[in-house]
Amino acid sequence: MKKYESLSKPELETLLNELEASYKTAQKKGLKLDMSRGKPAPEQLDLSNGLLNINIDDSYISKDGLDCRNYGGLTGIPEAKLLFAELFCVPVENTIINGNSSLNVMYDMISRGVTHGVMGSTPWCRLEKVKFLCPAPGYDRHFKITEHFGIEMITIPMTETGPDMDAVEKYVNGDKEVKGIWCVPKYSNPQGISYSDETVRRFANLRPAAKDFRIYWDNAYIVHHFDDNNQDEILDLFNECNKAGNPDLALMFSSFSKISFSGAGISATSASKANLDFIQNSMQIQTIGPDKLNMLRHVHFFKNLDGIKAHMQKHAAIIKPKFEIVLTKLAEEIGGLGIGEWLNPKGGYFVSFAAMPGTAKTIISLCKEAGVTMTEAGATYPYGIDPNDSNIRIAPSFPTVAELNQAMDLFILCVKLAGVRKLLQG
Amino acid sequence: MKKYESLSKPELETLLNELEASYKTAQKKGLKLDMSRGKPAPEQLDLSNGLLNINIDDSYISKDGLDCRNYGGLTGIPEAKLLFAELFCVPVENTIINGNSSLNVMYDMISRGVTHGVMGSTPWCRLEKVKFLCPAPGYDRHFKITEHFGIEMITIPMTETGPDMDAVEKYVNGDKEVKGIWCVPKYSNPQGISYSDETVRRFANLRPAAKDFRIYWDNAYIVHHFDDNNQDEILDLFNECNKAGNPDLALMFSSFSKISFSGAGISATSASKANLDFIQNSMQIQTIGPDKLNMLRHVHFFKNLDGIKAHMQKHAAIIKPKFEIVLTKLAEEIGGLGIGEWLNPKGGYFVSFAAMPGTAKTIISLCKEAGVTMTEAGATYPYGIDPNDSNIRIAPSFPTVAELNQAMDLFILCVKLAGVRKLLQG
Repeated sequence: MKKYESLSKPELETLLNELEASYKTAQKKGLKLDMSRGKPAPEQLDLSNGLLNINIDDSYISKDGLDCRNYGGLTGIPEAKLLFAELFCVPVENTIINGNSSLNVMYDMISRGVTHGVMGSTPWCRLEKVKFLCPAPGYDRHFKITEHFGIEMITIPMTETGPDMDAVEKYVNGDKEVKGIWCVPKYSNPQGISYSDETVRRFANLRPAAKDFRIYWDNAYIVHHFDDNNQDEILDLFNECNKAGNPDLALMFSSFSKISFSGAGISATSASKANLDFIQNSMQIQTIGPDKLNMLRHVHFFKNLDGIKAHMQKHAAIIKPKFEIVLTKLAEEIGGLGIGEWLNPKGGYFVSFAAMPGTAKTIISLCKEAGVTMTEAGATYPYGIDPNDSNIRIAPSFPTVAELNQAMDLFILCVKLAGVRKLLQG
Repeated sequence: MKKYESLSKPELETLLNELEASYKTAQKKGLKLDMSRGKPAPEQLDLSNGLLNINIDDSYISKDGLDCRNYGGLTGIPEAKLLFAELFCVPVENTIINGNSSLNVMYDMISRGVTHGVMGSTPWCRLEKVKFLCPAPGYDRHFKITEHFGIEMITIPMTETGPDMDAVEKYVNGDKEVKGIWCVPKYSNPQGISYSDETVRRFANLRPAAKDFRIYWDNAYIVHHFDDNNQDEILDLFNECNKAGNPDLALMFSSFSKISFSGAGISATSASKANLDFIQNSMQIQTIGPDKLNMLRHVHFFKNLDGIKAHMQKHAAIIKPKFEIVLTKLAEEIGGLGIGEWLNPKGGYFVSFAAMPGTAKTIISLCKEAGVTMTEAGATYPYGIDPNDSNIRIAPSFPTVAELNQAMDLFILCVKLAGVRKLLQG
């Protein structure tokens, strides 16, 4: 296909007329589709329906003898810790189990930093300024947390091997106001990038200027590949930090939100004993304990890591064809036109589309006016501002295959339309 | 019975010898009993075992059409709101449903005050000093929260009609550093006192010096009476605040922790729309939503307020005989001796014992050394310091009847022994 930028003005004008006509036709279809959030589809949730009728009325005592119906068990039950420890490849004693939302656990971690510092450091609310590094495009809800607490966010460019580590090292090792970095190390949100071994090692070997700097490592997609025979493996940060003599550097989060139920899973935190002791010091004030019955349900349903892996194959069977639709349509319709770029992720929940600079807002607005909701433009950048107005997060999981086909056709039309308009504006 | 203080020195010494001998015998029994926490007994938890095998695999869609397995529903599902609204006598639109721990919700509320203030006020972390009023004896975990955030706690004496309202009005209306007061208005922890109508009205008519002052109203024992025909009724604070033109004054909390499962219930916050809007502004950053499946389970199991009331009668049938043991033994063994006072609560989870001043620590230590764990002395006061060293919280719910008989016999022995020792010391 011919690149749009190589077309003459008359060619572009002819194309514009065709695209405007197609768009008017599309608008009349009255679509009402949502590709804005990384929500599992109902068929994916059905895979875990066994959790809805599981009977634990003769097995509510945990392995350590706790009545899971009653108070107690601040850090979760041993059998759930074991399940997560296997998933994380972290020693079981370095794992605590939390409630249904790992986002909430991360929010609490930041909130605690603001009010109490980290492991004895000055509470961040008493400091002039606190900064966080935000690899972007990234997860909007991470950025919203740091924004909510008035933390200054510094954008770190993403590369195909993870965050730009030269920039990360410069800031972390040189600026004691930098207290953390948000990371989604595997099948990153939204690009689906998995950090290279070198990236993980450079993380583990940081020499932070701030002693309370931590890597906020959100392993949301740890087993979320599309194909067992073609998956990314990332180095174990916990292990690498220990090797580097930096045992307290990493705070690692994970959850079952995209394994069992998004609204009713369990989540976990893994970190060094010193970090966990500090965290528990607040947790014991905050709650008498998490919902241990839901932990039991998960342990009974999934049993072990093999159970989780087998379950994730079923997720992949549903989600892989949807990604194929997105990637095939993009390749066939946009490839070679010079109006957009994307990566082909092996897992995760998103395709990240880099539109021609200055067109993302227009594309999303055009989609919206024809009935397809995309993630807000800029959402993947700190403060919701994409300096290039280029990145668009495509979330293919929730719509049906038929809906996705319609939505992608419209999306592609809008990308082309916005591209031609932009070129004609010069 | 003759008051100990009217005994002669030789009489006291004879008594001391008898009590020391009895104590030595008791120590040999090798008891291992715990009366320290307000935990429901296993038989109480059994009442809700229906929640352990309830089947919701064909009914996971909420009344407002939400798939409860998926993300979303930040403030809970309508049917759970209705259940709590009935319980609270608060409009359903003024209620949001939270996770398994109302303590966590209260912790979050204080934490949010520290980082963000309340409804636009200056964040408390930016103020020189923040104070909370703590009616005492009170709930140790409330006091631990305010202590954790470095908030200065001011003890307010409890009376038989609730906190000393003269003191409350003086502080709240006169000192803008006073940002809140902890209240357990019905069957208070630990005394079992229910606030009088006048007390509630005086609360509703406060004119706080600080616009971000709130009443933190922990209605933990709202339906937790021992006898349907002999229960306390308290005025509805929400309604009274509205009548007084103070709609934003109250933040009300409740939970199913002592209705269904202590570790796996649901909880709720009720407040004015302005307060809830402010709270949700943070909540939407904090989490994508609570566990809605557990809300569904509760709605299916309890159905409505009548269902809850019928269920609570079964709790009462188990818990009432235990309170009778405590109160009967105290009356028969300590009554008239002048070495301790207590109230006879009509509900709740505790009996509060006021030992002879200066003896509480000794009594608890004596109990401990003979195998019975009581709540730590001083726990019911801010900073864990009871200025009179007098208050002891008795939690009769968890032990069996047989255990409770043994534990109370030992407790009474220790009260007598500590009393006689004290009198002999002069």
